[in-house]
Amino acid sequence: MEFPLTPRAAALQARLVRFMEAHILPNEAAWHAQVAEGDRWTPGELVPRLQARARAEGLWNLFLPDERFGAGLTNQEYAPLCEIMGRVFWAPEVFNCQAPDTGNMEVLAQYGTAAQQAAWLTPLLEGRIRSAFAMTEPDVASSDATNIRTRIQRDGDDYVIDGTKWWTSGVGDPRCRLLIVMGRTDPEAPTHLQQSMILVPRDTPGVRVERMLPVFGYDDAPHGHGVVHFEGVRVPASNLLLGEGRGFEIAQGRLGPGRIHHCMRLIGLAERALEKACHRLSTRVAFGRPLAERSVWRARIADARIAIDQARLLTLHAAWMMDTAGNKVARQAIGMIKVVAPQMACDVIDMAIQAFGGAGVSDDPGLAQAYTWARALRIADGPDEVHRDQIARLELRRYGR
Amino acid sequence: MEFPLTPRAAALQARLVRFMEAHILPNEAAWHAQVAEGDRWTPGELVPRLQARARAEGLWNLFLPDERFGAGLTNQEYAPLCEIMGRVFWAPEVFNCQAPDTGNMEVLAQYGTAAQQAAWLTPLLEGRIRSAFAMTEPDVASSDATNIRTRIQRDGDDYVIDGTKWWTSGVGDPRCRLLIVMGRTDPEAPTHLQQSMILVPRDTPGVRVERMLPVFGYDDAPHGHGVVHFEGVRVPASNLLLGEGRGFEIAQGRLGPGRIHHCMRLIGLAERALEKACHRLSTRVAFGRPLAERSVWRARIADARIAIDQARLLTLHAAWMMDTAGNKVARQAIGMIKVVAPQMACDVIDMAIQAFGGAGVSDDPGLAQAYTWARALRIADGPDEVHRDQIARLELRRYGR
Amino acid sequence: MEFPLTPRAAALQARLVRFMEAHILPNEAAWHAQVAEGDRWTPGELVPRLQARARAEGLWNLFLPDERFGAGLTNQEYAPLCEIMGRVFWAPEVFNCQAPDTGNMEVLAQYGTAAQQAAWLTPLLEGRIRSAFAMTEPDVASSDATNIRTRIQRDGDDYVIDGTKWWTSGVGDPRCRLLIVMGRTDPEAPTHLQQSMILVPRDTPGVRVERMLPVFGYDDAPHGHGVVHFEGVRVPASNLLLGEGRGFEIAQGRLGPGRIHHCMRLIGLAERALEKACHRLSTRVAFGRPLAERSVWRARIADARIAIDQARLLTLHAAWMMDTAGNKVARQAIGMIKVVAPQMACDVIDMAIQAFGGAGVSDDPGLAQAYTWARALRIADGPDEVHRDQIARLELRRYGR
Amino acid sequence: MEFPLTPRAAALQARLVRFMEAHILPNEAAWHAQVAEGDRWTPGELVPRLQARARAEGLWNLFLPDERFGAGLTNQEYAPLCEIMGRVFWAPEVFNCQAPDTGNMEVLAQYGTAAQQAAWLTPLLEGRIRSAFAMTEPDVASSDATNIRTRIQRDGDDYVIDGTKWWTSGVGDPRCRLLIVMGRTDPEAPTHLQQSMILVPRDTPGVRVERMLPVFGYDDAPHGHGVVHFEGVRVPASNLLLGEGRGFEIAQGRLGPGRIHHCMRLIGLAERALEKACHRLSTRVAFGRPLAERSVWRARIADARIAIDQARLLTLHAAWMMDTAGNKVARQAIGMIKVVAPQMACDVIDMAIQAFGGAGVSDDPGLAQAYTWARALRIADGPDEVHRDQIARLELRRYGR
Repeated sequence: MEFPLTPRAAALQARLVRFMEAHILPNEAAWHAQVAEGDRWTPGELVPRLQARARAEGLWNLFLPDERFGAGLTNQEYAPLCEIMGRVFWAPEVFNCQAPDTGNMEVLAQYGTAAQQAAWLTPLLEGRIRSAFAMTEPDVASSDATNIRTRIQRDGDDYVIDGTKWWTSGVGDPRCRLLIVMGRTDPEAPTHLQQSMILVPRDTPGVRVERMLPVFGYDDAPHGHGVVHFEGVRVPASNLLLGEGRGFEIAQGRLGPGRIHHCMRLIGLAERALEKACHRLSTRVAFGRPLAERSVWRARIADARIAIDQARLLTLHAAWMMDTAGNKVARQAIGMIKVVAPQMACDVIDMAIQAFGGAGVSDDPGLAQAYTWARALRIADGPDEVHRDQIARLELRRYGR
Repeated sequence: MEFPLTPRAAALQARLVRFMEAHILPNEAAWHAQVAEGDRWTPGELVPRLQARARAEGLWNLFLPDERFGAGLTNQEYAPLCEIMGRVFWAPEVFNCQAPDTGNMEVLAQYGTAAQQAAWLTPLLEGRIRSAFAMTEPDVASSDATNIRTRIQRDGDDYVIDGTKWWTSGVGDPRCRLLIVMGRTDPEAPTHLQQSMILVPRDTPGVRVERMLPVFGYDDAPHGHGVVHFEGVRVPASNLLLGEGRGFEIAQGRLGPGRIHHCMRLIGLAERALEKACHRLSTRVAFGRPLAERSVWRARIADARIAIDQARLLTLHAAWMMDTAGNKVARQAIGMIKVVAPQMACDVIDMAIQAFGGAGVSDDPGLAQAYTWARALRIADGPDEVHRDQIARLELRRYGR
Repeated sequence: MEFPLTPRAAALQARLVRFMEAHILPNEAAWHAQVAEGDRWTPGELVPRLQARARAEGLWNLFLPDERFGAGLTNQEYAPLCEIMGRVFWAPEVFNCQAPDTGNMEVLAQYGTAAQQAAWLTPLLEGRIRSAFAMTEPDVASSDATNIRTRIQRDGDDYVIDGTKWWTSGVGDPRCRLLIVMGRTDPEAPTHLQQSMILVPRDTPGVRVERMLPVFGYDDAPHGHGVVHFEGVRVPASNLLLGEGRGFEIAQGRLGPGRIHHCMRLIGLAERALEKACHRLSTRVAFGRPLAERSVWRARIADARIAIDQARLLTLHAAWMMDTAGNKVARQAIGMIKVVAPQMACDVIDMAIQAFGGAGVSDDPGLAQAYTWARALRIADGPDEVHRDQIARLELRRYGR
Repeated sequence: MEFPLTPRAAALQARLVRFMEAHILPNEAAWHAQVAEGDRWTPGELVPRLQARARAEGLWNLFLPDERFGAGLTNQEYAPLCEIMGRVFWAPEVFNCQAPDTGNMEVLAQYGTAAQQAAWLTPLLEGRIRSAFAMTEPDVASSDATNIRTRIQRDGDDYVIDGTKWWTSGVGDPRCRLLIVMGRTDPEAPTHLQQSMILVPRDTPGVRVERMLPVFGYDDAPHGHGVVHFEGVRVPASNLLLGEGRGFEIAQGRLGPGRIHHCMRLIGLAERALEKACHRLSTRVAFGRPLAERSVWRARIADARIAIDQARLLTLHAAWMMDTAGNKVARQAIGMIKVVAPQMACDVIDMAIQAFGGAGVSDDPGLAQAYTWARALRIADGPDEVHRDQIARLELRRYGR
């Protein structure tokens, strides 16, 4: 279904598909069982064991375009691989390709000093630690990043951080050792130069996780999404990324690839939901015939096939633009997939839930949680409304506005 | 917004609104806190305390049209009351108007013998016990009720029940003492005479709850939805309802009012979600203006207002048809609201979630769980597909098919 | 399907249904043939002949709530009658209930002087002449009525009118003798007091119809929609309606009933389209079975049934509010039906077109022209966008904005 | 916005864009004026004049992949060219790339004998004559081609044709000299071997055009869509294409490219509608601000941009599959664009109509007629329902059904 892959990407794709079939799909129940046992927030041994194997097979850090640190694939090459991983929501971690670590590693690779890279990028690349990204705040419309209120204030050789973040994903995992925090260093500067980003070790005094937020009824353990308070958190000035007032610049650079990765994973998730729905509809009999023989279900299968393929092509197209013209020129294309992929995934998964009847809303076929992930992504990394507005603004500009 | 109420319904409505404002809304956080404490499956003291007060104020068993046992209101009179209760999902229980007990009480009132009524209807009417309805089965398309496989076999003066049910709602509550079970007494009889209903005390040997099913991650404790096994469950023959082979007849009689009550509650739930969205959008500022001033949100508020009002009017119309022409003539009208109300509630609540941004998918504004309830009702009591098919069948019949 | 009618309305309804079956439906082909013959803009003898019969049967001026001039029905009583007439788009004229004459007659009945009524209302009530309403202008967004630029200037005992109007419906008919024109009398007055309405005989020098506008490809002859220029058009000062600066006031009073009548007719039109679709789907065989047996068509029939019934109930509800609380309180309700009914009719008719296959887009089943009428009404009398904005504004006001 | 073009396609694209800007767009009003003058069914001198120029510039027969006769472009190369022509509905004829002649020329190039090619393909390639395709019939569901009833019976050295076709497009043009007719040669043969195709000169005795069918009021003159009767029409046996019983085979081969061309043109049409809408919304002021500043219009512009780009990518993908894997493997992909492109075009054009207000439904901005063309294509060449069913059938087959 794809436009032709480069030979290298095609080889990786084949290897990845085999890995998924041999090691991920057969372990789905085991993964859920490990989380259900114990305190939910202690990761089990399954993922580390599979990580070792994936790394040995060269299926590691595929997301990172910088060859010094990762696989050096283009976005267009990585897209179909990311989609395959996305078919099972915990699979990307097995290949060290999970959010938000991917984005954080990209930030460190692109903007970090040698010392910052040695301290944090290396252990992240090796999968020894995990990280979080603390940007969104509970009391303001964070889609307008100028609203961010957390303060990062210079005090001698340190910066002192005060504020509250939420939806800090991954902070529930005990292996999370680093937070990249966005905050205001200079409220008097021009709007887009007020914010900075800074590295905050998880165990710095004053960093406190108030509670973990559910997504619908799921806690997403052992990953999780935290409400995090920063109270007089003091870190060395050398922890600042790139320079004061460059927070927006980093955020822009980070969000492009981050958004496209989310979209690729959602396409894989939707593809899997359609597969499950087709299987169910083919085997479920009501009023004397399999459901798959009813035209109303046929029409929905067709619409799902169409929606998935359209979203995939749009994502590949955005990847190609990022690769060939740069993230800035690709802005409209990135905004478009950010609007399309989550809604498409919601629609396809919701259809699959309906195909499963009562089982669909339970945890048995894994669709309900998949839905909540897709639904959250209509809000995370900028809500649909903001992206649509930006897409239209760029469109109207062509006609002289 | 309603067509005129009878004086009695108007008086009850005013009293009910006051009760909600004085006793339900201020206790929402307390209710959730009580469930979060302890083992989740032990009901707290809040609801019983409020029940006593509601009963004292005459806000009790309003759902029951049979004046010997309940309020004796018509469906049209009860509809706006049920909607008000539905604004908070645990509120109906305070007025002893919660599913599935309402349906079970109607069955006992309408089809029960004096002995059955004394044993089960009386304590249910007094709110001393709770009950469950065991109809849907995990391995078949239960929307086609002829698929039901549970066996109810005569053995001397007893019936012996074997089978597995799921989505047996309310069975998680320790006060649940009774299950009404649908099963096949005569596989050789004509299709619609094979099934019967029987009363099974919860503590009968052989009744085993395997697990409680989540709905999008929510366990809905302390109510809950169980997978229930019946293994050689033996009850006296006098527990059979109405007679062998009359299961369908009872199911039909039970489902009409049950469906309309669900729809009324969903309208209340959607109305509350719109209210929350309006408040949020009026107070949240992004890019310099409250969100409520943006036309894209205005359009959604308008569409929500329209969808809610249309669903309410259609439900009132169905209630009026049930009251004046009977449930059989009202079949198409009942099918129509069963399709409309859950989808409408999903749409309105989803819009409200989006209005709340990140908070929307968390538990804070209560919208995520409301969504899951509405979503499940696109499947429960017959999936949309079955109802649409039936509506069209009746429509086509007008034109000579 | 309706809530109970008053005995008088029920009697009229029965008589009207009989009239439609006896005299309108059998003459549909004849009506179209009369227009196709000759110059299209000369009305044939069919309608006058049927008018005489309708008037004799008391089916005349049913729209007019003012008993001095018309039937004196409430909006709720008239609604189901108007729906029945609306099943055939040229039928309302047979009962002298066609737009824009109905609105013009209401204006004259409510705001006209005795002399104005004698000159214009009487012949309109008798069906001897027809009239047009000249409000919308081609060069401005007329949805914002403060944009209207046509000037009405006092000059001695006369007013002189200069400007251009379009979508002046009915002006193609040679029997059209009167235009009610909206224009600016005082550009210095407060915004809502700048406009006035004035009576302009069709044959006044300076009134010139530039061309007739098609709706999609239909000219809607012999009624039609004109681009009308007013160049130094001089009429006596006594032709002004109500007083200078009261144009908005009259427009508001005129548009409420006008909108509800359009919605009622659209419901009838949609009901007829569904009827045609059901008949077609029942008789058309593809791949071995009638289309009506396919669930995808069943689902659409069900959705159409639901959409029509919801729109009807919302319209009846708006009618009831206008009758009991007045047009001002009913503003939100009127806005809601104005958004719902045209879109619903477009959807239902479009579905019917698809059911007819190639025939659907031709003129054979009459659906294509019906679609264009419904589509135009998403714009006429205020586009959807303006109504949604207003609905939301009123909704938000409940919550303190 | 496209994936990279081949150098040759890029050069043609640039030349074509210049031609459109220099010769087509400035002549839009002139084209409509020529049709409005005279009898509508006599083509004017504008198109022949532009054809000569286009041919001189090498912009001729670009659609034909067979290098012996045409440009020899792949589908992927032709797609963006076809889209550009499609921006103005009469433009393809200027480049001799108009339906149904393109499909007919492909049939003749692929399946015609040397004699058939000399007689008909040569003058068609030179634009000297035009042709029609007579397949659909009025009295049966032609989407199921086994329903086709027209008889083609051998009689000595001739075939005799009897039957009625409709939606025979292009038959209104006096330059139309050839009809390719599908009909049943052997009712006893296996279902898919009953039909054949035959060449029928337009002036053969017994060929009679009963009437021209309107599409939503438009007669589409001078092209038009005819109801054509064949009464004892006798042609030499050598006029049969390919052989008896091979009608389906030819139809399949013809429809693939035909469908993709329609889709490409629709994308161009939608792109133009969006352009017009953006311009209008940027310049129209209501309630104090240009409409383009309202978020509800912004959201629609964004959705249109997304829908167009998704449709284009899906079409390019289908073209690539046809080029690389063949039309049979590309069946699902072709079905998908046939569902997507017409609906997308309807949606975008309808949005643009709404943006134009009253002008939108008139002929002034050219949107209303564009809508009717897109709408008809949800039915022509197979209705959406048949394509969705086929897409789902192929999808389910992957999972073992």
